[in-house]
Amino acid sequence: MAFKVIKENILGANDNIASKIREELAGKNILMVNIISSPGAGKTSFLEKVGPILKKENIPFVVLTGDCFTSRDAERLDRLDLEVVQINTDGACHIDAKLVNTALKSLDIGGKDLVIVENVGNLVCPASFDLGEDVKIAFLSTAEGHDKPMKYPLLVRESGLAIINKTDLMDHVDFDMDFSVRCILDINPGIKIIKSSCKTGEGINDFIDWIKDRIKIKKEKKT
Amino acid sequence: MAFKVIKENILGANDNIASKIREELAGKNILMVNIISSPGAGKTSFLEKVGPILKKENIPFVVLTGDCFTSRDAERLDRLDLEVVQINTDGACHIDAKLVNTALKSLDIGGKDLVIVENVGNLVCPASFDLGEDVKIAFLSTAEGHDKPMKYPLLVRESGLAIINKTDLMDHVDFDMDFSVRCILDINPGIKIIKSSCKTGEGINDFIDWIKDRIKIKKEKKT
Repeated sequence: MAFKVIKENILGANDNIASKIREELAGKNILMVNIISSPGAGKTSFLEKVGPILKKENIPFVVLTGDCFTSRDAERLDRLDLEVVQINTDGACHIDAKLVNTALKSLDIGGKDLVIVENVGNLVCPASFDLGEDVKIAFLSTAEGHDKPMKYPLLVRESGLAIINKTDLMDHVDFDMDFSVRCILDINPGIKIIKSSCKTGEGINDFIDWIKDRIKIKKEKKT
Repeated sequence: MAFKVIKENILGANDNIASKIREELAGKNILMVNIISSPGAGKTSFLEKVGPILKKENIPFVVLTGDCFTSRDAERLDRLDLEVVQINTDGACHIDAKLVNTALKSLDIGGKDLVIVENVGNLVCPASFDLGEDVKIAFLSTAEGHDKPMKYPLLVRESGLAIINKTDLMDHVDFDMDFSVRCILDINPGIKIIKSSCKTGEGINDFIDWIKDRIKIKKEKKT
């Protein structure tokens, strides 16, 4: 039976908390990125490559890794001795700002340069939720097909970086890279694109350079 | 600023419409299946294989294909002369029963044996919405990794069939089939599993046999 409920405006309440997070991180010179992809596009594998390099380069960072129920991804990163906080959404399809806020409060965030949010695997819902991040990253995979930017345009529009992962699979799937890149730029002409593969290592250093640049810009804004 | 809104109980209203759809299709002996997957798992490619066989075997059917914005999938099926209705969710992350109802009303459904709903690419949200279907199909892909059933258990629990697609990619991705099958059966011991590939043709005939059985059972229930 349908019945009436009184409900807080979810996005409005979320945006309030996100604004406070953004303000706090700005005050502390900390960059936050929000990585969004389909299930199995390779976010965790990518962070398994990127994390140890950031650590070696003495960039203090933490990963907030989202999942509906399990902590498999957090365990994978923990095995590499990376600092990670598991955010379980209890079945919900996205991380919201309240969950990020709770995770940040549980940490000694002061000395960090970077917070990486690994969102729940979903190309639709997470794109609508501001977490207080500096930049969203649209993390795509060749195995999904070249038309996905066109089919999930909100994420591409909201993102500052698009990563096209699993380039090593390109010979085995019918993926038209030019088409995909054109789609992405049609939706968001200002977006940066990195092609990557966790198997061949393609793009990993490009990402490291990009994130170091963003950290530098964030610090310069403060001074 | 947060403010109060009065909102209909979404799932309650949805379930009412779903029940009416289920009743109507039962009265007409029509089977409805609801295929749910991540973006790019291969639902449309699978239907491009399955559709022409169903047509050749004189099984009257229609595909309701969901997408946030585009009609690319519907165009692909239309090119094969299959009957298809595009359902655009205008950015929403799932098809709801109201959209299915509108689509069915636009059709001459009476002579059909089968309605195939191809849901929006999303492993989380569509699993919560009853569309009046007889059975949900959890459509997975080897490219997503073998741990996805564990990470998205609701869909597996709600489904009567799990399809593990893109078996042709197994040598190129680190996919442990035994692990994946075990995960699926741990969550839902009664589920049927079909391994498939649109490149090699594996599993296509198994699916045809399965769906013909389901259609037959549905018809027998009536008499």
